[in-house]
Amino acid sequence: MKVAPELPTDMERFAEALVREAGALSLAQFRCGTLVVDKSAEGAPLDPVTAADRAVEARLRAGISERFPDHGVFGEEHAAAPGSSPWSWMIDPIDGTRGFVSGFLHWGLLLALRYREQPVLGIVHQPFTGEIWIGSSEGARFTCREDVRHLRTRSCGELAMATLATTDPYLFEGAEADAFEAVRSSVRLTRFGADCYAYCMLAMGQVDLVVESGLKAWDVQALMPLVTAAGGVITDWHGGDCRKGGQVVAAGDPALHRAVLQLLAPAAAD
Amino acid sequence: MKVAPELPTDMERFAEALVREAGALSLAQFRCGTLVVDKSAEGAPLDPVTAADRAVEARLRAGISERFPDHGVFGEEHAAAPGSSPWSWMIDPIDGTRGFVSGFLHWGLLLALRYREQPVLGIVHQPFTGEIWIGSSEGARFTCREDVRHLRTRSCGELAMATLATTDPYLFEGAEADAFEAVRSSVRLTRFGADCYAYCMLAMGQVDLVVESGLKAWDVQALMPLVTAAGGVITDWHGGDCRKGGQVVAAGDPALHRAVLQLLAPAAAD
Repeated sequence: MKVAPELPTDMERFAEALVREAGALSLAQFRCGTLVVDKSAEGAPLDPVTAADRAVEARLRAGISERFPDHGVFGEEHAAAPGSSPWSWMIDPIDGTRGFVSGFLHWGLLLALRYREQPVLGIVHQPFTGEIWIGSSEGARFTCREDVRHLRTRSCGELAMATLATTDPYLFEGAEADAFEAVRSSVRLTRFGADCYAYCMLAMGQVDLVVESGLKAWDVQALMPLVTAAGGVITDWHGGDCRKGGQVVAAGDPALHRAVLQLLAPAAAD
Repeated sequence: MKVAPELPTDMERFAEALVREAGALSLAQFRCGTLVVDKSAEGAPLDPVTAADRAVEARLRAGISERFPDHGVFGEEHAAAPGSSPWSWMIDPIDGTRGFVSGFLHWGLLLALRYREQPVLGIVHQPFTGEIWIGSSEGARFTCREDVRHLRTRSCGELAMATLATTDPYLFEGAEADAFEAVRSSVRLTRFGADCYAYCMLAMGQVDLVVESGLKAWDVQALMPLVTAAGGVITDWHGGDCRKGGQVVAAGDPALHRAVLQLLAPAAAD
């Protein structure tokens, strides 16, 4: 197992300032009759991209290249830019673009710093509310205006007492849908429409479980250090590394993670 | 048809100031390990109520009684208090309590002023973001910090181009679930986890359609003047008065409302 060196001391501050700057660009187009381009294949569900996505990613890339010209930068909307350093970045300029284009609030900028492709620092930022969640080996914290909190997931070892969050139950198909239904019908409360907020609320100890599928690498890499640093577990449906996306499950309590993996196992992808 | 007299001139200002004051009480318990009491019948889904719900409703009732001692006041968490005036109020202290207790953002205080039981002024307030939506015969407006906007729903006469919002697809059962599925599979985009935000986004021209069931009177009465004043239509699934709650459908475009009623008709309650 490769161990990442210590995080350069000002890395969190740099990344936080940069996402705040880029976030302001997304706000300029929030609830403003934004022009939406559909990236989906014909017949597939709407996969929107907006000028806001592109502007945010371009700003993040420019900020990173200026400060760390040797770092690689990868993201949802622009071409991959591999670097010469073991450090690289992964960007999702707006996670929850479907919510963004519909005026809702559960969306955010995701930025991950990786060491040899392993996410070691993750940031989520919602520019409309000003919320920021940051996780790294130094811990997990939440900042919103004057409110700054150290984050810990909550204890919840039993599915029957758990709150589950996901984005859209119709994203699961076939055996996945059956596995999701097994989880949903076992928990106390399920919330939909969550996108990245599902993981943020898990890190805050507000929800216990997140089950999703069809994620991309940029949807999940910033969330991994956040969930882990707060005391949670985030894996694929086999319990393995989820940095490539796909089927993802996160739990605030390791015992709950073990319990839910049993329900998801029949539908875990090869 | 009884026509309401003109709204007293300072009524909007009074109601707006009051919901802001009451909203602060809910914030004190948001994301704070809130104690949740389950009001549901045994075996039924979680129906949470928090001290925040009770404190907000008590504050709204006290403010109304002090200013208008002859007005009736009705709400979700306290006993009905009929008055001697034709004016009365309907309170939902926190619409979206399940989202509130899970730390999400799509919840709000709902306050309706009624004239002979017909809602004539409706307010939605999200204290965490500071957003307020108000609708009455004087129009619909949105306020958030420095941003003040006149609200208009958007044109969208075709289901295939529509964005649909609802709270939880599992709230529909039997024929209702089939009817919802007919709508969901006809539209371009569906967003879940919406609660009162669904109607607010419809009034803002961000979504086109809301379909819900199982609502209570306090869930819907504040939303009726808001949707109507913004140019939308809000009815039960037959196209009739929905002030008692139950099955509710709202559309930003009257043509879309007519189209969706045809899909919902087979499951419209007697």
